[in-house]
Amino acid sequence: MSRADRLEAVLHERELGALIVTNLVNVRYLTGYTGTNGVCIVGEGRRVFLTDFRYVTQAAREVDGFDREQGRQDLLEDAAAHLSGRVGFEDFSMTVRQYERLRGFVSEGTDLVPAGRLVEALRAVKDDRELDAIRAAAALADEVLAVVPERGLAGRPEREVALELEDEMRRHGSDPSFPSIVAGGANGALPHARPGDDPIARDTLVVVDLGCMVDGYASDCTRTFATGAIPDPATEVYGLVLETQVASLGEVRAGAPCTLVDAFARDRITAAGHGEEFGHGLGHGVGLEVHELPTLSRAGEGELAEGNVVTVEPGVYVPDQFGIRIEDLVAVGTDGCEVLSGFPKDLIVAG
Amino acid sequence: MSRADRLEAVLHERELGALIVTNLVNVRYLTGYTGTNGVCIVGEGRRVFLTDFRYVTQAAREVDGFDREQGRQDLLEDAAAHLSGRVGFEDFSMTVRQYERLRGFVSEGTDLVPAGRLVEALRAVKDDRELDAIRAAAALADEVLAVVPERGLAGRPEREVALELEDEMRRHGSDPSFPSIVAGGANGALPHARPGDDPIARDTLVVVDLGCMVDGYASDCTRTFATGAIPDPATEVYGLVLETQVASLGEVRAGAPCTLVDAFARDRITAAGHGEEFGHGLGHGVGLEVHELPTLSRAGEGELAEGNVVTVEPGVYVPDQFGIRIEDLVAVGTDGCEVLSGFPKDLIVAG
Repeated sequence: MSRADRLEAVLHERELGALIVTNLVNVRYLTGYTGTNGVCIVGEGRRVFLTDFRYVTQAAREVDGFDREQGRQDLLEDAAAHLSGRVGFEDFSMTVRQYERLRGFVSEGTDLVPAGRLVEALRAVKDDRELDAIRAAAALADEVLAVVPERGLAGRPEREVALELEDEMRRHGSDPSFPSIVAGGANGALPHARPGDDPIARDTLVVVDLGCMVDGYASDCTRTFATGAIPDPATEVYGLVLETQVASLGEVRAGAPCTLVDAFARDRITAAGHGEEFGHGLGHGVGLEVHELPTLSRAGEGELAEGNVVTVEPGVYVPDQFGIRIEDLVAVGTDGCEVLSGFPKDLIVAG
Repeated sequence: MSRADRLEAVLHERELGALIVTNLVNVRYLTGYTGTNGVCIVGEGRRVFLTDFRYVTQAAREVDGFDREQGRQDLLEDAAAHLSGRVGFEDFSMTVRQYERLRGFVSEGTDLVPAGRLVEALRAVKDDRELDAIRAAAALADEVLAVVPERGLAGRPEREVALELEDEMRRHGSDPSFPSIVAGGANGALPHARPGDDPIARDTLVVVDLGCMVDGYASDCTRTFATGAIPDPATEVYGLVLETQVASLGEVRAGAPCTLVDAFARDRITAAGHGEEFGHGLGHGVGLEVHELPTLSRAGEGELAEGNVVTVEPGVYVPDQFGIRIEDLVAVGTDGCEVLSGFPKDLIVAG
């Protein structure tokens, strides 16, 4: 059953005659198209893909199982010509402006219905080929992280280290799945720090968070290194985060409610007095995008399912002092999870 | 007059009591904040900036002239508490879903009005500091392009060349402003080709399109190189594109209608029988983003203004054979334009 066929079954359940897919990642998932302007329509027995002049040749190579049509650069009007009846649209990504224009283009009697994240929900469950790509991307992240202790951290600008790690990815034919984070000392307390130009201090902690792309799929992995001896309180927090991370892996299985997996980790960190310093969710789905469904957080919806790929990444951030995050990428199974990240998690000194 | 003050003046003209700014590039433009979650509100005497836990420290460093507030990760509800009366929202970037949620959060009597691209319009006119950054980014692109004839193209995979050029940027402390394009032979006929793994042929044309970031501002420059002797028809088309590009530069000045500048170039290429093969607009604004206002195309709106920075990039794409694009970045002045790209435009053989 093709992805579009699975979507059609969902549309049938929702009593939607068709879905106009404008989110480019979703278009890629359904059609194989990797360009930057494209729309597809999936409906009962209907598979239409539209792109403009610039991507016609590329689409001919990439898109299979859809009727291909060339439209104007703004594809909405040409797409609207295919719509009638009760049509879902992607309200989580379509802008208000696009929606208003689309509404002006569709024929009278066409009912545009906000459809939520239907394709995103399909994407959350990976097939074997997708899992293979993510496994390979995770294995490559392991190799890249191995460069850290080899080349050392202390005295080098964060930015230099980040570029070196990304070079390593490119040498393997990959690209970063997001801008790599190398955050030493107090910078580590900023969960989304950007690498800076100051040299990394000795005797501090350094958060290294990176991911690679393989065959269009992302990985995501974080380790926290030391550049020498670190103070006892930091060592204690490292132990807390590591123990929480490992214990949380044991909670990941099909059927586990997303909020409860997050709460399991959060309760431990809170009980140790660091709840306020764990200001983000425990994890997120990873696939074609580095942040996708499902979400392991207080706001997470639903339960984990077999074939989900999620991060498990508790962190503690002590303002102006240090940050510690340990993150594995895992594939959810019926009785547990397969940990795709293989890099050691004990505190490694990378002087 | 600060950027927020200029926006306030525009809001006054539009009879809007405030604008909720959710487009992150616009938030950055107004507040200086460079993180990935933030919202600001600008109104009569009101300057509020909201971010979540992860970016509070960063915001304290970056954001000046706004009241800073910490909200939950989904900032809309916290932002809504500041809204009342007639409030503009950014319908070109806010999703339908965000809008519906925001509408649910605002107090009764609050009127949410689609405000179009108010901040984008301010951003289109660059101040001196912005122009300096873009000049530097354009100069760096020139230096990077100089690597092409130095190291040669023929026999090397497009991807290897692209990575080499991006490495050169990074050695200068910059980053690519978009994924670099290196497209040889028939690949050059795909205006947005991605670099591939096959070696670039001899005696063909290669489109190289790249840009650099300096102080948050982008540049964008394209040159087409030869890898040896090229057939007469391709040489003729190169002459056409070059002559069109140079002549079009003469049309760029404050007050020129955006559609007419595009038509000037398009008419020449059409008269030479290649109109169908010039399937994109003549140019686009460049600044914090590599594609912004104004747009030089058949759909372009309004007139060029002093301080606009735009590309001038005619191209001809002959399917399955070759593509030729020549692109300069220019700053619009009252009587003409300052060409910021300095790399030679005569056909260079980079064997």
